[in-house]
Amino acid sequence: MKKYQVVGIGNAMVDVLARAEDAFLEQAGIGKGIMQLIDMDRAVSLYASVGPAKEISGGSAANTIAGIAHLGGRTAYVGKVKDDQLGAIFAHDLRAQGADYSTTMAPRTEVSETGRCIVIVTPDGERSMNTYLGVTEFLSPDDIDMAQMAQAEWIYLEGYRFDGPDSHAAFAKAIAACKGAGGRVSITLSDPFCIDRHRDAFRDMIREHVDLLFCNRAEILSMYQTDSFDSALDRAASEVPIVACTDSENGVHIRAEGRRWHVPAVPTQIVDATGAGDLFAGAFLWGLTQGYDLETCGQMGNLAASEVISHIGARPESDLKVLFNSRGLT
Amino acid sequence: MKKYQVVGIGNAMVDVLARAEDAFLEQAGIGKGIMQLIDMDRAVSLYASVGPAKEISGGSAANTIAGIAHLGGRTAYVGKVKDDQLGAIFAHDLRAQGADYSTTMAPRTEVSETGRCIVIVTPDGERSMNTYLGVTEFLSPDDIDMAQMAQAEWIYLEGYRFDGPDSHAAFAKAIAACKGAGGRVSITLSDPFCIDRHRDAFRDMIREHVDLLFCNRAEILSMYQTDSFDSALDRAASEVPIVACTDSENGVHIRAEGRRWHVPAVPTQIVDATGAGDLFAGAFLWGLTQGYDLETCGQMGNLAASEVISHIGARPESDLKVLFNSRGLT
Repeated sequence: MKKYQVVGIGNAMVDVLARAEDAFLEQAGIGKGIMQLIDMDRAVSLYASVGPAKEISGGSAANTIAGIAHLGGRTAYVGKVKDDQLGAIFAHDLRAQGADYSTTMAPRTEVSETGRCIVIVTPDGERSMNTYLGVTEFLSPDDIDMAQMAQAEWIYLEGYRFDGPDSHAAFAKAIAACKGAGGRVSITLSDPFCIDRHRDAFRDMIREHVDLLFCNRAEILSMYQTDSFDSALDRAASEVPIVACTDSENGVHIRAEGRRWHVPAVPTQIVDATGAGDLFAGAFLWGLTQGYDLETCGQMGNLAASEVISHIGARPESDLKVLFNSRGLT
Repeated sequence: MKKYQVVGIGNAMVDVLARAEDAFLEQAGIGKGIMQLIDMDRAVSLYASVGPAKEISGGSAANTIAGIAHLGGRTAYVGKVKDDQLGAIFAHDLRAQGADYSTTMAPRTEVSETGRCIVIVTPDGERSMNTYLGVTEFLSPDDIDMAQMAQAEWIYLEGYRFDGPDSHAAFAKAIAACKGAGGRVSITLSDPFCIDRHRDAFRDMIREHVDLLFCNRAEILSMYQTDSFDSALDRAASEVPIVACTDSENGVHIRAEGRRWHVPAVPTQIVDATGAGDLFAGAFLWGLTQGYDLETCGQMGNLAASEVISHIGARPESDLKVLFNSRGLT
């Protein structure tokens, strides 16, 4: 048995969650529902313009790993924070959930701070993300422990990381170590505009290395530059053994071994959509490593997503195993 | 018209809210339902032992001021944070709510950090508080702006502050400036054990300066060292023009001008009791400065308390004015 079921690599950050009306997004020049990168000056001025906020650990792949750890899965996470208060919060929340996290913290003398994401949650529950990457941008191959990657049944790569200068090399190192030891590679496309910035790199990696692709409708359309959802799914399925593509309230489409499944979403009152995709991936991956069939994995993913969007913050608050059990999935 | 309806002085801190079972309190040596002061070493070890947490601005008087500002009241707050990330969060959340906050931040070179309160929330919604004061302990008379105090209709003093070495002198300066300009003084007793530590100082201040006393049952019993709630209330009413003493689910007892009122609590599902007393005081003070009668102020206080205990965190999340209006109070 490998030490880890899943090791995630991503942007380590703390979410700063504030509520605002849609008009605020327009005034502040924020694209609704997407992730925009911002610098520290913008982070300061944007923060000053939002109402009272809550700080809750986030980071896409970190949320996924927290979800798997919450389910009792054996996990580790790789992502950079600084030795500051937000860094301590991020590290605490991940370890307290049971995940291994030993990435070296950037020292206090480093100018950049721990990354944060100013998440504006509108009355419809949609989240619009403004990300100051801080030190997490500088994750490098030196931060990848090859022995750890070799101990992973799966590694899980966060698409947002393609924005970092050394991330491609870091990913390559992690993939080589994982696959060399018989592990498998999953990736999430993260965001349509991130794909725009790095489409060729995404495509190369998917074709050559990826065993399981997580994405949503907007991302897969961006990836294959088409407006036909079906043909994008076909294309992905021709390149990757397993594709799990979420489509908001329409549920998830799964393609594998020449077969296809559609698993309906779980109807929920949306309070804050932050983390829906992350927790879908977490529950799906946990199900897979526990030996459940793909359709059940999709149901688990949908249930976990429905839990995380029913409250503020992108980490689970109710017991997901109890939830799975109540639906007869486990 | 004075510039401020209420200026609060208290311990500035960020709450670190984590859920745990009652057994955890026992294991960790935490007294249920009260506030314990802890040092940085204990803060680090206790934090390491709790589950994933949320960071939300707190501080008793700061919550009260945030509540009044939320209601549209003209407010300012005095309390010390450091120029660090938690200090920035505290300052932001108060200003974003509309309160003036200009206390000089302690510099980064200061060893102590911004204060934080590790709040353990048990399944019954009770909160048990573990406070690392940090720089907020060192609020001194130099931090009191006499002109600001003279511009206050009311000042609101947090009992917890009696634990600081220079706080008695700081309070005396604030009281002199406020009363000298025709303002009035309110105080909250904060905690029965804090009263134990400083009973004589509390009693002297109450007899000599206080126009409005906020407390709860345990605190007033501790103050007057009696087990008769009625006689403690009588005693307080003989010393202070207005007494508002909350008694959890039994509502609030108000004594003034030789009269007495009992205002029943608003039944609520308790999620997290943190801030109930703070928001009671905020809404009560706001009502008073708006010219409402004492019974209505008590109803407003109870409603605000019921809102804040219905969710995690000690600051209002729903529109309290809408709530007051729906009950026919405004």
